[in-house]
Amino acid sequence: MAKLLAVARGDAPADLVLFNLKLVNVFTAEVYPAEVAIVDQWVAGIGSGYQAESRHDLGGRYLLPGLIDAHIHIESSLSTPKAFARVALAHGTTTVITDPHEIANVCGVDGIRYMLEASEGLPLSVLVNLPSCVPASPLSTSGAVLEAAALVDLADHPRVLGLAEFMDVPGATSAEAGALAKLSAFRGRVIDGHAPGVLGKQLQAYVAGGPRADHESVTPAEVVEKLRAGLYVFLRQGTAARNLLELLPALTPENARRVAFCSDDRHPADLLDQGQVDYMARLGIRAGLDPVRAVQMATLNAAEAFGLLDRGAVAPGRRADLVVVDDLEGFKVRYVYAGGVKVVEDGAFSGDSSGPEVAEYRVRNTIRREAAVVDFSIPAEEGLLRVIGVRPGQLVTQIESHAPRALKGLAVADTERDLLKAAVLERHGKTGNVGLGFVRGLGLLRGAIAGSVGHDSHNLIVVGADDISMNTALAAVIETGGGFVAALGGHMLARLPLPIAGLMSDQPLSTVRAQMDELLAAALELGSPLHDPFMPMAFLSLEVIPFLKLTDRGLVDVERMQLVSLWT
Amino acid sequence: MAKLLAVARGDAPADLVLFNLKLVNVFTAEVYPAEVAIVDQWVAGIGSGYQAESRHDLGGRYLLPGLIDAHIHIESSLSTPKAFARVALAHGTTTVITDPHEIANVCGVDGIRYMLEASEGLPLSVLVNLPSCVPASPLSTSGAVLEAAALVDLADHPRVLGLAEFMDVPGATSAEAGALAKLSAFRGRVIDGHAPGVLGKQLQAYVAGGPRADHESVTPAEVVEKLRAGLYVFLRQGTAARNLLELLPALTPENARRVAFCSDDRHPADLLDQGQVDYMARLGIRAGLDPVRAVQMATLNAAEAFGLLDRGAVAPGRRADLVVVDDLEGFKVRYVYAGGVKVVEDGAFSGDSSGPEVAEYRVRNTIRREAAVVDFSIPAEEGLLRVIGVRPGQLVTQIESHAPRALKGLAVADTERDLLKAAVLERHGKTGNVGLGFVRGLGLLRGAIAGSVGHDSHNLIVVGADDISMNTALAAVIETGGGFVAALGGHMLARLPLPIAGLMSDQPLSTVRAQMDELLAAALELGSPLHDPFMPMAFLSLEVIPFLKLTDRGLVDVERMQLVSLWT
Repeated sequence: MAKLLAVARGDAPADLVLFNLKLVNVFTAEVYPAEVAIVDQWVAGIGSGYQAESRHDLGGRYLLPGLIDAHIHIESSLSTPKAFARVALAHGTTTVITDPHEIANVCGVDGIRYMLEASEGLPLSVLVNLPSCVPASPLSTSGAVLEAAALVDLADHPRVLGLAEFMDVPGATSAEAGALAKLSAFRGRVIDGHAPGVLGKQLQAYVAGGPRADHESVTPAEVVEKLRAGLYVFLRQGTAARNLLELLPALTPENARRVAFCSDDRHPADLLDQGQVDYMARLGIRAGLDPVRAVQMATLNAAEAFGLLDRGAVAPGRRADLVVVDDLEGFKVRYVYAGGVKVVEDGAFSGDSSGPEVAEYRVRNTIRREAAVVDFSIPAEEGLLRVIGVRPGQLVTQIESHAPRALKGLAVADTERDLLKAAVLERHGKTGNVGLGFVRGLGLLRGAIAGSVGHDSHNLIVVGADDISMNTALAAVIETGGGFVAALGGHMLARLPLPIAGLMSDQPLSTVRAQMDELLAAALELGSPLHDPFMPMAFLSLEVIPFLKLTDRGLVDVERMQLVSLWT
Repeated sequence: MAKLLAVARGDAPADLVLFNLKLVNVFTAEVYPAEVAIVDQWVAGIGSGYQAESRHDLGGRYLLPGLIDAHIHIESSLSTPKAFARVALAHGTTTVITDPHEIANVCGVDGIRYMLEASEGLPLSVLVNLPSCVPASPLSTSGAVLEAAALVDLADHPRVLGLAEFMDVPGATSAEAGALAKLSAFRGRVIDGHAPGVLGKQLQAYVAGGPRADHESVTPAEVVEKLRAGLYVFLRQGTAARNLLELLPALTPENARRVAFCSDDRHPADLLDQGQVDYMARLGIRAGLDPVRAVQMATLNAAEAFGLLDRGAVAPGRRADLVVVDDLEGFKVRYVYAGGVKVVEDGAFSGDSSGPEVAEYRVRNTIRREAAVVDFSIPAEEGLLRVIGVRPGQLVTQIESHAPRALKGLAVADTERDLLKAAVLERHGKTGNVGLGFVRGLGLLRGAIAGSVGHDSHNLIVVGADDISMNTALAAVIETGGGFVAALGGHMLARLPLPIAGLMSDQPLSTVRAQMDELLAAALELGSPLHDPFMPMAFLSLEVIPFLKLTDRGLVDVERMQLVSLWT
């Protein structure tokens, strides 16, 4: 502290001075020339005449605070925090508020601890909100159940902010005991929200219960109502859910102070090709959002939403998390400083790529299921099949009814009508359940695809045109220790190994992306017209998103929140 | 909580519903019709169709969040928290962030505990920042010295936010050990600031040290520079320092989110006649400030500055601290609800006027000095007198030089040149010091005035035209147990008793004001042309405000921070 103050006063040289730059001041929404003195990981002072051991000429470019992703599941990048960090930083993200919800569903507290340990000391600040709803519901078998007490045990970690997206809206608003125990345990701390379509009195009750933010709005009216009720609103532009442009009309100069950006879920290709918060700012600016306001949303507003006083602005005593862009309109990240250290040079990660030493034995080998042949046969019955109808680009599925294609007394896939067989297989070593059903909309003409990413319980999912391909794909996923696979008959066509909890690769993001590309090519070869059939497959099992889903326990009618027969 | 949620959902009746109102939504800066459901001390929900046991028709008036005074010394109202609360509430203030700095200088930790106990359970929320700089300097003798450890002991009180205005700017920016110990002890909590005229690199160092807010700006440029550096700025309109109108030009729609209002010090007459935050909003609006922005500054912005999530807006789960005004332009407070209970009816306090039972023995009888005749004689020397020059409406004094009026070898007052004798007498039972000097600018033509309010150490101060009147006034203050007195010769003309720490009356504010009016009339009779000569007298001893001051230890040259001779 004494050193920081001496530099700020100008009585001691800074470690580094950035000069020839235009500072975007998010407190006042001004842009003006300045020099920034940095010592250790802090901004010491802003002004002129600061002496330093090292000086960087920023060529007249714009200096912004490091960008903050207000809500992301790192697991969705299919990579470890270390690999994710390199790409996030290259896009100007210096802080993420992450919810290790996926790995918690597989590994419980061990999974959360792994994410904390695996992000320790990274140049990216990984701040954690604790998964509030594991499992999503009792209608599927997850790897762990997290009660309030387990969460409280983790709450003292210096990088834990509070409770992550509180998805149990009925529990919260009806004061159900388990939900209330969690909300009460974190009263006065951060409680992030998740309230898709929750409006009117339900919204009032939800906000009264404690959540302070929400990222699930899909219409401008929903944004406005949530802002009015006191929620911070995060505009989401993920891979699956892309809401940003539709929501922008809700913003006014007056209400934007309580709006920020979040990714929620972004896949490797989107992270690499588009970016993260920088992409959202760029998109917004192109659509008419004031650039300085976009910067405020990407920085100060997110920091304020979580009560973070040490970042979100370029100011004395705050972290020297800094982003340099050529111009505010293009919003192309050129340099990034994380805690005072330059980690991105000309848009590419150039920082220290070592990461923490982490014991991974608790999060590897999580596919606790034999690679034995599974009997996927479904005896044909009278009546129509209840079929999960997948719509492009939507997580919400439809409840469809179709006559079965019967063969030797069995209901089988019918690729002419795009009726594929689907199975969800419990993989946590608990029940060995196999849920069977049919899905329409993935468009495979032959073969099968399978994976160990199956929201939220992350059981194994396989979808195929025939049982042999399904068994081949499934066995390959199990033998790989988790991942995605495409198969045809007895042959595996491609695979993406995800050995960490069956959710994350241990390879760099570029490798993950290349493996994913091979998988997508294989799926195309199998006839799927979708760009990525693996994503809708991974959400087939999410029994809290309407309307019809398949878990290891069977077909779930989400609105009735109960298991239903395959036959109507 | 279950009850709150049931009311919010509309499943249980509220205690009270307010209807026929226009809600000022400070999150979105919108004004629209709404109904507000209240249960216990909380707002449960906002909408329509809420059932309730009681319903209040607000006659189409405007409903605002309760106003927040971001920084005030309650002692300056010369009354106890309970008496102050009645008047504050009548003016729409439902929360004050108070710094018990004055009583702490007299009674130390006991004084702070008294303020906490005396404000317990009041309808006014009294939140406390702990005095950070007691005493102001070693150049005067205060009743107590507060080190970091004593402050930390108080920090866990539920109504203590953090550290109050950190006045020791040199200590903070130069990383002096005592200052750093306090700043470090409260790192991550609220640290309020006090940095008059601190700009440039000093300001950068000050902000880097931890303070998050400042209320000492006197020019728009100072406001802008402080906002840019990341400080919240409180526009002050006190009794002594009235900065609001001069500072308003600094505000923009973009930077106003980090600006709030504060009183700092407001005297009884101003509180009663003008008001508090309502007065500042009214003044601002009359000068062109957008009314809704004024409401944001008076509520949400102040709450955000201190990280208060339970107030500052009318929203579910927040305190039902609510203010009703007839119109936003006039900003006349008609009704006030504090924690859901109506406490102001037609602009007058109508709430529960009982207060907490408080043991006062630790804060009474604090004038530890005999009422013995004091020898005020000053031997005449060669050369000129160093005289404290008081300017109307300013706390900053000038260093003047005047030839003494010598009588029988003594330097005496000379009312023709407005040279009055002044004395500051240690009253904490420590040294018995008597500091002597001369002051110009108070304008008494005869007699003397005296008081036990003498910033910041609150020793006794007496100013007069002759030694007999001075001794009469002084003796009366001591016999009264503290207060203000005017005297002529052997006669006391008027007095205002301040038995609590020599700073506060135990009477209602209206009584205090009537007694003060008598005092002012007496001062007028003694020839002073000033509206209130007691206020500049009370600041004669504040040795941290430039340029020349008088403490019990003698004359202080503030810029050199040392004692100087009476003679040049």
